[in-house]
Amino acid sequence: MSSGWSVGLDIGGTKVDGVLLDSASAVRGTLRAATVRGTDGVVTCASRVVRELCAAAGIDTADVVGVGVGVPGLVDPRTGSVSHAVNLGMDLSDVPLGALLTSALDGVPVRVENDVNAAALGAAHLLGLGADLAYLALGTGVAAGVVLDGRLRRGFRGGAGEIGHVTYEPSGPQCACGQRGCLELYASGSTLDAAGPVGPGLRASHEVFEAAAAGDPRAAGVRDAFVEAVAAAVRLIVLTYDVERVVLGGGFAEVGEPLLGGVHAVLRRQADGSGLLRSLASADRVVLAPPGAPVAPVGAALAVRGRV
Amino acid sequence: MSSGWSVGLDIGGTKVDGVLLDSASAVRGTLRAATVRGTDGVVTCASRVVRELCAAAGIDTADVVGVGVGVPGLVDPRTGSVSHAVNLGMDLSDVPLGALLTSALDGVPVRVENDVNAAALGAAHLLGLGADLAYLALGTGVAAGVVLDGRLRRGFRGGAGEIGHVTYEPSGPQCACGQRGCLELYASGSTLDAAGPVGPGLRASHEVFEAAAAGDPRAAGVRDAFVEAVAAAVRLIVLTYDVERVVLGGGFAEVGEPLLGGVHAVLRRQADGSGLLRSLASADRVVLAPPGAPVAPVGAALAVRGRV
Repeated sequence: MSSGWSVGLDIGGTKVDGVLLDSASAVRGTLRAATVRGTDGVVTCASRVVRELCAAAGIDTADVVGVGVGVPGLVDPRTGSVSHAVNLGMDLSDVPLGALLTSALDGVPVRVENDVNAAALGAAHLLGLGADLAYLALGTGVAAGVVLDGRLRRGFRGGAGEIGHVTYEPSGPQCACGQRGCLELYASGSTLDAAGPVGPGLRASHEVFEAAAAGDPRAAGVRDAFVEAVAAAVRLIVLTYDVERVVLGGGFAEVGEPLLGGVHAVLRRQADGSGLLRSLASADRVVLAPPGAPVAPVGAALAVRGRV
Repeated sequence: MSSGWSVGLDIGGTKVDGVLLDSASAVRGTLRAATVRGTDGVVTCASRVVRELCAAAGIDTADVVGVGVGVPGLVDPRTGSVSHAVNLGMDLSDVPLGALLTSALDGVPVRVENDVNAAALGAAHLLGLGADLAYLALGTGVAAGVVLDGRLRRGFRGGAGEIGHVTYEPSGPQCACGQRGCLELYASGSTLDAAGPVGPGLRASHEVFEAAAAGDPRAAGVRDAFVEAVAAAVRLIVLTYDVERVVLGGGFAEVGEPLLGGVHAVLRRQADGSGLLRSLASADRVVLAPPGAPVAPVGAALAVRGRV
């Protein structure tokens, strides 16, 4: 299972990102397609991406060692079943996505992973920083994929890294999860968007950061609150897992350097006031995910081959 | 290294608890002695406990496979050096405790671990609940020892499980660590004590729980705030590590069933209002450390033998 071609897919609410890896784990093809929602739609579009990636490289789909799939939902990687993948229009429990996709691909082995976990595996590989890290996904929600000493930590019920639902502000608003003031309400990009319009039409995170840099005080306030919450997520990750690296990823980390610089500044300011935080040196551990790199599909492809 | 006798010590601020384990990891002797503070004092009283445990069992100290030592401080288990063990009167960095103790014991191998990590290893063994758990130490401070899939998670800088310094109440008082409103300020037994006198002379945690049960409203308030904070620590542990079991240990868990029942009730109430928390079923995972059992010395003894 550790040689030959493999395919990795990241199936999100709007698009499927696919990669083809060769036996040396190098990316030999990429493909993006629109997601078709619902179980049938997901299986159909996913299998089409696999077939087209193979065709473009001139290989037979049957020659692929396996297909790894990252999905936003609760996954049982042993069985390949997926629960509550609401963003994919798959609301049911225990949808046998792995088995369905294997069937659609005429028997090719399929491994299903949570998408954030897949991204953590991919980031560990693509960054070449060693395999003790957390991938902090800043997207519609907030969660961490955690690789400890080279092993993905999924948890007893697949819930490891659900840090978006740790309380951040006990007196804060109700979260969709039912609790109050969850970290996800403050550190997620969707919150940054929802904070707009900061000025005329300023909604997206890039625009908030740009307006803040240009001196707009309200944009600066929104940006600073977001950065503070992301820094709190990093601090939480270090105080719990004490991973060597924390990788800022997900759509809202694409703001890039201004986010990283802001998080570094907050963590250094807090370390100045705390011997414990100073000794943990959290700021030194934070890096950005490689911009535009297919971390989740690559991680999914590595997972099917049992590689980290 | 996996057969023969081994000794485990838990060196605390007031006492040294020692156990002698046989080759089947059964406890064959226990001994408690007063801690003598300072590096020389710690080495002297620790080596005396080892020698007396062996003498009482009629074996030669030189026949011991190794001595495991749990200490409250930052430990580098590879070198056996200890930093900032202020409760032992060892304030310096990188005190070579392992090497000093090996020397005092004429060459017997010594392994040093953080005491909470040792307790986690011991709890995993003594409870027989599998090896995926967090040991939540409720003592002067609050921290977790974490065993994930049979492996102790120490962390990149020995800081894994420092959950006592995750923020619990952002507007709370200053913590000794320099941050504000740390969980440790609310979930530690010392805080429970400091909240007294609840009634005349009611200071210790047992008395607070007894007075609360007897209808004292102020004691009930102190108890409920403590229980709420301990439940928050459990929730944090489940949302981050998603361990199969959370073991309540440390001096202030000796309150026993009233604490466990209270934590269960809080977690069930919160799960009623949150689908996510319901699916994680945190309450079902919480158990008490075996009352009076020498979890930390047993764990230290297992660590020196490379067993979990």
